[in-house]
Amino acid sequence: MGLSRDLKNLSFILMNFFKTYKLEINKALEGFFQNYPCINFSESEKILLEGMNYAVMLGGKRIRPTLGLLCFELFRTKDCEVSRKKVIETLISLEFIHAYSLVHDDLPALDNDSLRRGQLSVWKKFGEAEAVLIGDSLQALAFENLAKNSPDFCIKKLIKILAQSSGIQGMVGGQIRDMQSENKKISEIDLVKMHQKKTGALLVVSAQFGAVLSNASDENFAKITKFAELIGLAFQIKDDLLDGEGDSEIVGKTVGKDEKGFVKILGVSESKKRLKKLIEEAVKIAQGFKSDKLEDLAKFVEEREK
Amino acid sequence: MGLSRDLKNLSFILMNFFKTYKLEINKALEGFFQNYPCINFSESEKILLEGMNYAVMLGGKRIRPTLGLLCFELFRTKDCEVSRKKVIETLISLEFIHAYSLVHDDLPALDNDSLRRGQLSVWKKFGEAEAVLIGDSLQALAFENLAKNSPDFCIKKLIKILAQSSGIQGMVGGQIRDMQSENKKISEIDLVKMHQKKTGALLVVSAQFGAVLSNASDENFAKITKFAELIGLAFQIKDDLLDGEGDSEIVGKTVGKDEKGFVKILGVSESKKRLKKLIEEAVKIAQGFKSDKLEDLAKFVEEREK
Repeated sequence: MGLSRDLKNLSFILMNFFKTYKLEINKALEGFFQNYPCINFSESEKILLEGMNYAVMLGGKRIRPTLGLLCFELFRTKDCEVSRKKVIETLISLEFIHAYSLVHDDLPALDNDSLRRGQLSVWKKFGEAEAVLIGDSLQALAFENLAKNSPDFCIKKLIKILAQSSGIQGMVGGQIRDMQSENKKISEIDLVKMHQKKTGALLVVSAQFGAVLSNASDENFAKITKFAELIGLAFQIKDDLLDGEGDSEIVGKTVGKDEKGFVKILGVSESKKRLKKLIEEAVKIAQGFKSDKLEDLAKFVEEREK
Repeated sequence: MGLSRDLKNLSFILMNFFKTYKLEINKALEGFFQNYPCINFSESEKILLEGMNYAVMLGGKRIRPTLGLLCFELFRTKDCEVSRKKVIETLISLEFIHAYSLVHDDLPALDNDSLRRGQLSVWKKFGEAEAVLIGDSLQALAFENLAKNSPDFCIKKLIKILAQSSGIQGMVGGQIRDMQSENKKISEIDLVKMHQKKTGALLVVSAQFGAVLSNASDENFAKITKFAELIGLAFQIKDDLLDGEGDSEIVGKTVGKDEKGFVKILGVSESKKRLKKLIEEAVKIAQGFKSDKLEDLAKFVEEREK
């Protein structure tokens, strides 16, 4: 494992592989919007597309496609016929789903957030009705993109995984759990379940996409699912910690206002302990795969400052 | 064509085949929700599912899956391996997309409609934030259902058609055109384009689904696409006419308030002429296929009172 596993070197490592992946994914996303067929679009449709583009390119860590790409690279065999380029083009559907969920989450009727990643949220910039439609069309775009770019051998599986995990069984189920638990006492079990669905489900899908695209074994599929579940929950606990004690300017959104979540129920210290334990478990799985990158990704979830 | 084509007998014919199809589709939809896996659902997720169920079962003509089923029956050959039951189970995805679009359309930020088909609209009954999520999860459900029920040989094509036609290239594109043209002068060409996208696109998809599921020839696919485009536009002109001069109690929503559309631009009399012409063209295609049912469906679009 050597020096490269030292925590003090982590930021340097992340400066390299993690940033490279993010740049590649951002390039694919930019290319997607630049080449999107819009020749017959009206002015209003152009604004809609601009809003979709804005929502997706607002920034973000691209952790979902990065995780998918890492898993693909980990499991692909020499005779894998799917190109890395095609995999990235398929994985960007995850960012469309993620972006749509944020656009709708920020709406006045939901979280009523004016800022997202330090910039105006979509409804604040494009209008409320427009934001509803921008989110709606981003969700459709995720499936449109899968139909265009997914290899034939796995399209049914990818559609099934993505649709299930982003709908009532997964992400949206988590959102309604979150919304309806606001200002109510919530048990730790329910809190975990809510997080697993709201943000965890899409991270799990990301890892599973990489596994499916590389035609991984059922055993590896199961292991990587577990890995993603662990870092998914860790990711959310870290979010709660950042919301509670992060720096507004670094985090890029209003912090301190959002005291639900693990920090509220368990307190800062216990939340940090849970976070650490989850990351340790995830690191163990990564080490079982002898994957330095997955290990770094897990550590990044714990260490990130935004 | 004989007696059965007489307009005075149309309502009788529709009482039979059209109602039978609607009942079959409603049965499939009811079965879908009754059997939907929800054993581990929280109270909030149960409410979300109830809202999805409510949105879909609010009624409606089920014209989209009916059109799809008619096209399937028209084009299927003797060696078609796809069962009628499976086709209906696939086609209900169209109702999920249609329902989600209505749920979001009724939101205060969009049309601000309290009534839908004579009953409370979803946001009015379940809350505004809930309605956003109910719509979102219905869209995901459409793709989840396709992944579950579509035959393997055509799933990629169905996903592509549905995602493209319901997103920015189709339905949502039409919605933003509609929204941003409100209180502005709009040319007839732009009005047609808006209608073709907003409501036409999903009707075209319906016919295309039937054609794809029956493995129809490219020629028949093109003809049925044209048929659906014609009745799609006719359907919207009829909607405008009903909104302008229909009976609130029969139509099931507040009428008279919505004066955009063909009636506003062309007036009642000219709108009726256009409607008649479109239906005549559609009837010609139906007659070319020797399909009494498609012919009746076209006539129904012109004659319906709600």
